[in-house]
Amino acid sequence: MMSIRKRVGIIGAGPAGLLLSYLLSLEGIDSLVLESRSRAEVESTIRAGVLEQGTVDLLKKIGLGERMEREGAVHQGIELRFDGSGHRINFHELANGRGITLYAQHEVLKDLIAARLKQEEQPILFNVENVQIAEITSDQPHIHFQHEHEQKELECDFVAGCDGFHGVSRAVIPEQGHHIFSRSYPFGWLGILIQAPPSSKELIYSYHERGFALISTRSPTLQRMYIQCDPLDDIANWSDELILEELQARLESKDQWQLQVGPITQKGIVAMRSFVIEPMQHGRLFLAGDAAHIVPPTGAKGMNLAIADVRHLARAFARFYQQQQTDLLETYSTTCLRRVWRAEHFSWWMTSMLHRFPDDDAFQQRLQRAQLEYTVSSRAASTSLAENYVGLPFTW
Amino acid sequence: MMSIRKRVGIIGAGPAGLLLSYLLSLEGIDSLVLESRSRAEVESTIRAGVLEQGTVDLLKKIGLGERMEREGAVHQGIELRFDGSGHRINFHELANGRGITLYAQHEVLKDLIAARLKQEEQPILFNVENVQIAEITSDQPHIHFQHEHEQKELECDFVAGCDGFHGVSRAVIPEQGHHIFSRSYPFGWLGILIQAPPSSKELIYSYHERGFALISTRSPTLQRMYIQCDPLDDIANWSDELILEELQARLESKDQWQLQVGPITQKGIVAMRSFVIEPMQHGRLFLAGDAAHIVPPTGAKGMNLAIADVRHLARAFARFYQQQQTDLLETYSTTCLRRVWRAEHFSWWMTSMLHRFPDDDAFQQRLQRAQLEYTVSSRAASTSLAENYVGLPFTW
Repeated sequence: MMSIRKRVGIIGAGPAGLLLSYLLSLEGIDSLVLESRSRAEVESTIRAGVLEQGTVDLLKKIGLGERMEREGAVHQGIELRFDGSGHRINFHELANGRGITLYAQHEVLKDLIAARLKQEEQPILFNVENVQIAEITSDQPHIHFQHEHEQKELECDFVAGCDGFHGVSRAVIPEQGHHIFSRSYPFGWLGILIQAPPSSKELIYSYHERGFALISTRSPTLQRMYIQCDPLDDIANWSDELILEELQARLESKDQWQLQVGPITQKGIVAMRSFVIEPMQHGRLFLAGDAAHIVPPTGAKGMNLAIADVRHLARAFARFYQQQQTDLLETYSTTCLRRVWRAEHFSWWMTSMLHRFPDDDAFQQRLQRAQLEYTVSSRAASTSLAENYVGLPFTW
Repeated sequence: MMSIRKRVGIIGAGPAGLLLSYLLSLEGIDSLVLESRSRAEVESTIRAGVLEQGTVDLLKKIGLGERMEREGAVHQGIELRFDGSGHRINFHELANGRGITLYAQHEVLKDLIAARLKQEEQPILFNVENVQIAEITSDQPHIHFQHEHEQKELECDFVAGCDGFHGVSRAVIPEQGHHIFSRSYPFGWLGILIQAPPSSKELIYSYHERGFALISTRSPTLQRMYIQCDPLDDIANWSDELILEELQARLESKDQWQLQVGPITQKGIVAMRSFVIEPMQHGRLFLAGDAAHIVPPTGAKGMNLAIADVRHLARAFARFYQQQQTDLLETYSTTCLRRVWRAEHFSWWMTSMLHRFPDDDAFQQRLQRAQLEYTVSSRAASTSLAENYVGLPFTW
């Protein structure tokens, strides 16, 4: 059996795993990323697309900002729409010049993979199968896996579990000593990619009695749009016509606004969930990103949280290898969780404010309306949304 | 049968009814207040005690501020306490110099009654029985009632229903054309009056796993304190000792803080509810204060909303009698309801943040903690609490 030796074994080539391996390399710490999907799949799977200011600043600082700055779109605000009226939340003004950048997650991944491949040879193994973590509470954990029809073993000092919500990493953590926090929402998002010009320069979050709708963008010719739906619904029940009708209805406007339409090139339904495991660590296994926590997409926080996690984790490993100090590894979970819970709360809050809940009574709906009106009328409330949306500091 | 003729018949001698009659008198509009309780009872029943800045400013402006300024206590902030640490929300700094005044509702009522009695003879009938509103959708409504063992009738142009949540006014409004919004909370407040020096210069709102607790004050020798409890609990189950033990436990502090104790002179349990009727008007009946809406006491909004309502209503009547315009009467409900729903939302939000809900799961408790931490850490979030607590403008 082939055995490989690296300081850090990283499971998963998503934003967390790839950025971690890149950051560790900058610190002279070797690692190997194991990914079950092919490179082509990783580089084409459409996921999130909103980068917080802190994420953008970090990527620039470590030399990964070149294409993002060229192809990404900086947004200085979003629109909240309800009762047919749009209300702009001006991030630039409310959040001290900070904003967001729309740049798709798979583009970030392409940049990370390309950059990592420049650093060294074979830093990522794709199409890896049967990944098993062993002896995680010892000083020398192993990761067993199959790659190119061969059984292999990675010996390492630490394992970073960056393999997402359905990954194998979290599964090795025993129930005892850990707490799971979870919430399923009684709705999902039906998302489409549509070949059309942008309907709006900035994102539109629309509250409507028929349900929530979101207008987002990808490029001058390709747009991303979402409508709230039954999470158990079959996408086959949704013709392109029906989806566009529903978008039109939920985005009704007293102004001249017009939904730009065209061929729908992709559609699908995702369920919505909140999830956190505490602590985010077990023995020598450190979880990061979706493996440790997921948020409903309403606050656009998923990828940004993953990036914040591995920024802390890379620093903790650097401190361990360069100064023989375990303090940052010991506080890794606590440090991350403070920010994670902020994002969990914000994501829940945005979700609760903007969606129709099937079991909400009339009183709750009036509260929702009062919350929306207050959010767009009070500078303090708008600032609160803005500072969370563009992202609180990594060390919040 | 004795018949009285006034322009406005006012049912209820609480803050809404008494202030309305006083404001109307300033505008030269005659009115009569009918109250089922005795004057002594009205002037001694202990209710709310926090006046918003706008309420204070209004009372001063109309010449009712003299004793309030002398005996009331101006507070420039409150403390939020959780995990044994106190966090001050500095109203003065966050809400542009605005603050609150602690001055008990029955003291406000004493001032109002005294001032009203100076304006004219017998402007308020106490100990009135069997109040019945008739022909409210006509131009000449009547109020039938018994007073001093005599059946009497008040003929008026308008009726102001200021008789609280359990009053008779709202009961004459037909279901059709009106909406009721209501929420019962699964807890109540056990409140005490205690003969002791103040435990704190400002109010303390404490979140604790045993339940919410509130330290408030009345005078240098008398304090008001509350603990969250089962709303159906019998006060007989709560010995003075048990109440003080519970207060001590829920207000635990890492600092030198000490609960000041003494004889408990009054104790009782109140249920908590949110309620709104829309519109707040039917024919010539206009509801104001608790007759139209109630809030849980956590945000200290009840009396302040009542005062805001009758400020609008007095202006609407003045406009009607002085300029023969009905516009402000027609928009009365809409104008009030915008502010009412803001207060309903704020009161629900404060209540949700600070209480333990019996059916909350671990995820919800973590969200609550995240909300508390954010509220005390972010200037925007602190400002949001502060501006709501000191009170948004009457015309918000």
